[in-house]
Amino acid sequence: MENKTQIIAETGKQELFIIREFDAPRELVFKAFSEPDLIIQWLGPCEMETVVEKLENKTHGSWRFIHKDPAGNAYAFNGVIHEVCYPERVIRTFEFEGLPERGHVSLEFLTLEKLENDRTKATIQVIYKSMYDRDGHIQSGMERGVVDSHQRLDALFNLMKHESR
Amino acid sequence: MENKTQIIAETGKQELFIIREFDAPRELVFKAFSEPDLIIQWLGPCEMETVVEKLENKTHGSWRFIHKDPAGNAYAFNGVIHEVCYPERVIRTFEFEGLPERGHVSLEFLTLEKLENDRTKATIQVIYKSMYDRDGHIQSGMERGVVDSHQRLDALFNLMKHESR
Repeated sequence: MENKTQIIAETGKQELFIIREFDAPRELVFKAFSEPDLIIQWLGPCEMETVVEKLENKTHGSWRFIHKDPAGNAYAFNGVIHEVCYPERVIRTFEFEGLPERGHVSLEFLTLEKLENDRTKATIQVIYKSMYDRDGHIQSGMERGVVDSHQRLDALFNLMKHESR
Repeated sequence: MENKTQIIAETGKQELFIIREFDAPRELVFKAFSEPDLIIQWLGPCEMETVVEKLENKTHGSWRFIHKDPAGNAYAFNGVIHEVCYPERVIRTFEFEGLPERGHVSLEFLTLEKLENDRTKATIQVIYKSMYDRDGHIQSGMERGVVDSHQRLDALFNLMKHESR
């Protein structure tokens, strides 16, 4: 498979970078990250159902998503959106509500870069309250969720390309 | 002067801590950080006027403040509020709109801790997009603004104590 998700987490830092290229133009990638009817088709580990409970996709907006597994367990996430700058940048906070203690919030910077041949490079920088929070997030199985999501997103773009022919 | 602002910025990190004790109970310190009519009396360097343009002081709210200097220059700041947990915690984003480039957003964790004798310890952890952003913020004269603000806040609490007698 050509498209591969890179996760870069330097030792001792309180940040990580998720980098991925998509075979779709930037405006479409932005749309896939922004519109609930598209988000539910790709976000999350492949066995889970995603519910977009709230998404005010604008500067000073907010969001809340819920992943549900086949056993009926629910995992909720929420945050506020500092800035939406179409079609290149979204800055938002992120918190998993299932942690034993509240207040472990991170800040995400999504940047979409236009490449040749209608391709797009997505970079998500995540900064954490501490390196322990970052390492805990990685150890929670975050990578599989991200890789699954991106593969589902590839499939969605492929389907959309096929349908638009 | 007994109350002193500490700013701790470890070399090579992308965070800093601002620590300060106040001679006022926690509920009152929380109020001073939350209500526009109090904020304008202490926030900012002492020669500046502060305007609270927007403050939705709640979880998933947002804010925008403007400092105006005697020469008429305006310095605007804005962000979103991830969580307000009365009377102990506020988590919000922060951006100075006057930077040459947008997107250099930081995340602030304000924690208020109850001390003996109706005193309160405030800790503000700020995490930055990079250590360069943090060091730039320090070099912009942030410390004087913070120290001034806290001294004005001491004076405000002192006045309120006097008035309530």
